[in-house]
Amino acid sequence: MADELRRTRRGRDNGARKARRAQRIAGDESGSGAPAYITRRIPTYELLGEEGLSRIEDHVDILLDEIGVEFRDDPEALRLWRKAGARVDGVRVRFERGMLRELIQSSTPESFVQHARNPERSVVIGGAHTVFSPAYGSPFVRDLEQGRRYASMQDFENFVKLAYQTPWLHHSGGTICEPVDIAVNKRHLDMVYAHIRYSDKAFMGSVTAPERAADSIDLARIVFGEDRVERDCVILGNINVNSPLVYDGTMTAALRTYATANQCTVVVPFILGGAMGPVTVAGAVAQSMAEAMAGIGLIQLVRPGAPAILGNFLSSMSLLSGAPTFGMPEPAIGYLAVGQLARRLGVPLRCGGAITAAKLADAQAAQESADSLMPTLLAGANFIMHSAGWLEGGLVMGYEKFMLDLDHLGMMHVFANGLTLDDNAMALDAFREVGPGHHFLGCGHTMANYETAYYRPMLADSESFEQWQEGGERRADQRAHKAWQQRLADYQPPPLDPAIDDALKDFINRRKDSMADAWY
Amino acid sequence: MADELRRTRRGRDNGARKARRAQRIAGDESGSGAPAYITRRIPTYELLGEEGLSRIEDHVDILLDEIGVEFRDDPEALRLWRKAGARVDGVRVRFERGMLRELIQSSTPESFVQHARNPERSVVIGGAHTVFSPAYGSPFVRDLEQGRRYASMQDFENFVKLAYQTPWLHHSGGTICEPVDIAVNKRHLDMVYAHIRYSDKAFMGSVTAPERAADSIDLARIVFGEDRVERDCVILGNINVNSPLVYDGTMTAALRTYATANQCTVVVPFILGGAMGPVTVAGAVAQSMAEAMAGIGLIQLVRPGAPAILGNFLSSMSLLSGAPTFGMPEPAIGYLAVGQLARRLGVPLRCGGAITAAKLADAQAAQESADSLMPTLLAGANFIMHSAGWLEGGLVMGYEKFMLDLDHLGMMHVFANGLTLDDNAMALDAFREVGPGHHFLGCGHTMANYETAYYRPMLADSESFEQWQEGGERRADQRAHKAWQQRLADYQPPPLDPAIDDALKDFINRRKDSMADAWY
Repeated sequence: MADELRRTRRGRDNGARKARRAQRIAGDESGSGAPAYITRRIPTYELLGEEGLSRIEDHVDILLDEIGVEFRDDPEALRLWRKAGARVDGVRVRFERGMLRELIQSSTPESFVQHARNPERSVVIGGAHTVFSPAYGSPFVRDLEQGRRYASMQDFENFVKLAYQTPWLHHSGGTICEPVDIAVNKRHLDMVYAHIRYSDKAFMGSVTAPERAADSIDLARIVFGEDRVERDCVILGNINVNSPLVYDGTMTAALRTYATANQCTVVVPFILGGAMGPVTVAGAVAQSMAEAMAGIGLIQLVRPGAPAILGNFLSSMSLLSGAPTFGMPEPAIGYLAVGQLARRLGVPLRCGGAITAAKLADAQAAQESADSLMPTLLAGANFIMHSAGWLEGGLVMGYEKFMLDLDHLGMMHVFANGLTLDDNAMALDAFREVGPGHHFLGCGHTMANYETAYYRPMLADSESFEQWQEGGERRADQRAHKAWQQRLADYQPPPLDPAIDDALKDFINRRKDSMADAWY
Repeated sequence: MADELRRTRRGRDNGARKARRAQRIAGDESGSGAPAYITRRIPTYELLGEEGLSRIEDHVDILLDEIGVEFRDDPEALRLWRKAGARVDGVRVRFERGMLRELIQSSTPESFVQHARNPERSVVIGGAHTVFSPAYGSPFVRDLEQGRRYASMQDFENFVKLAYQTPWLHHSGGTICEPVDIAVNKRHLDMVYAHIRYSDKAFMGSVTAPERAADSIDLARIVFGEDRVERDCVILGNINVNSPLVYDGTMTAALRTYATANQCTVVVPFILGGAMGPVTVAGAVAQSMAEAMAGIGLIQLVRPGAPAILGNFLSSMSLLSGAPTFGMPEPAIGYLAVGQLARRLGVPLRCGGAITAAKLADAQAAQESADSLMPTLLAGANFIMHSAGWLEGGLVMGYEKFMLDLDHLGMMHVFANGLTLDDNAMALDAFREVGPGHHFLGCGHTMANYETAYYRPMLADSESFEQWQEGGERRADQRAHKAWQQRLADYQPPPLDPAIDDALKDFINRRKDSMADAWY
């Protein structure tokens, strides 16, 4: 191998090098050997000790007991709270100390399986497991050629395909971008269909109206069967709290729809510090826990045992301009605390992601995304939305950013695997063979391990300066541009039973025919 | 303030916004309130348990006892080892189990002060403290306008000035870049002079020949006085091990020169996995510890109690092309293990940094740098070289990369500060004042905290898309380009006693006159 290395380093093997790179970029995941989700072999990072954690938990109890949470425009939610013994005053609901913790711990699963239509892609959410899912919700997309523009259904399908092709995303996500060329009241049908048709990974449904949540679940029933959906989690909904301390009726109705069907809701306080919460991180963390616990408690009242994910979206603000900021250190510290609190509560956690305020897939985007993602992983987050593609505070889904994030997620798989300490890893034979002053390139241990020793980046460049110059001096985002185009050209859909496909289309057509287009 | 925020967000206050940004970029550190070094308020990350750590320590002992370390071309080093009871066979030195640990722990300071000529900038190296220092050793520089070129003395001085101006680097570094326009045997004099003249932070001296090490220390004696240098650490030398398991005589002679003068040497195994060590991380970590311990042991034989830093440079390799890779997850995991091992040994640690193989300050550069720097910090590294400027595997010092790294280091200051949990941070009054559904922008708590609540980035953009568009759609590296030019234009040197300045120049002139120029 040493000879081979030398030959290639001298650039005599340019053709082979290019072929290998092309293969890595094109590479679909069949045969990658990558797991369907991460099982962390590294410990979580324990930021706070017992005293700090108790102090925050105590503060959560105070907020819930004294300030309370409003449930607006949802009499059914208020009825459930009243029945459960909470203090309901108008739409304001207050909770005795410890009530929500007890309610949540009495029936919320600590971990659960979200089943994919390909059983090999089912994911475990909770415990020592981490699931990476694409970014969610942007009205715009951006790529190097066409710039920034409104997202379309074509873009949506492209991202579903790209997420399907990579081994580093475990989940197909939900509203990866908003297909604004489809009517607002109908696009959820096309989005759920695209997840099912163009991928075989687990996916998310709509929450923007209770009937859209119901449609999403009905489509899942066609794929998995009614009995199966009654028994197993096959779809997730992601609802935002109208922070501070308010749930609006649309969100709780969607939550109740998912819970009634025994499907999972991710309950996400959305706190831009200084606007929807205090500017100090500890207060925002406590608020976030109080809000999420109220939502998860409601799920358990609707259907005890229904799966739920404690969500958290913490961000900061430029207090000079009022603009939100993303990927900053204060929220990252917040994630680590939330991770500890979620573990103590015993519920799966969603937080963080690869988020940024940057407009382009440039140095800022990558640095902020990395500084968010590693603390997210170390916090023990179980479901990491916004793992790939996010730009501009979530307004934009970036094609090049998506590909760069995928490569980064691959690296995080390695990081999460920790340090192997078996005899092969200690390499005593190699030291005996090589000895001081010689090189390890051709030794037996290197020969036996070199193919799997290190992560092989798809996009990160390690060529010599001269090779890179010959290749056109391309920036990372320029390499990423070629990569997504190549992947889409190579895309092959997973098999889908034609009878199921027809039934899905029938359902969608009937539902679409029943409504006039709504555009807002 | 809410009014102010709204006004600015609407972009009506563009002049004031630009003035604030200009001030942030120009801003020298006077009055920044930033500390002279970091005192971590976050815990270190404990990757391994007792069993894993013992296994590696045991392996270190085996390597030292069975394989041993070669000390080439330095009879004095061999004499010292023989006298200390090591088994010397030719140039190979072997150590009984536990011998080096005992030798090191008997006299190596767990932490020490490196004094700066401005006492307010003296740094503590060791314990819960972290010192950020610029990148080191690149023959090339790069900026957006002039591209990649050989470094000159002008570049060297520029980086000393930029490092002086920022609050986020605590140290002036050493060979920030190689001033190749000065003779090889004389440039150390100009470099050390530049550190003293254009900065008042702590700095490093030459190690490329024992007489250059001696010159560096003699220059420090002119600044600090002979007595002071005999007593206090005022200069660092950074030597590389010729891995695997070899010290060359130039390095050990430099090490002995610094130790004799009671000055600190950073002892750095330089291991590209697969070349200078095994491809498996655990083996490379053990090798790195064995090598560094041999060097620190030698320091303690030369002068018991002389300060030392256990260094570590672990990298990976593209095993397809043989090219070294930087910023990959395998070395990052290695740092975390080395951090634990260094703490158990009780010596200050240098590892990691903001390193990358990328050619430009692009997304790859930022992602790899961030993925290296955070684990470096979490590993508890005490002296972090290569904190700013590093590109292309250390071949290039990048002007824009340097500025982007500075902003990132500022964020790491906030991260290292952890989570504050006092009453103000919990913000109970704010929740009482605001209540559910309202915003925190104008509340008393926000007003009292907004100026200091969040890190204020120098370069990270959080403008609206429209503002950013009006501003020319600049990438992060393009913003960084303007920033370093502005800083250099605004540079003001720190005061230096003219008598000392003259004495330094006299010494340098005499030394230069005594030698013919050598260019290799």
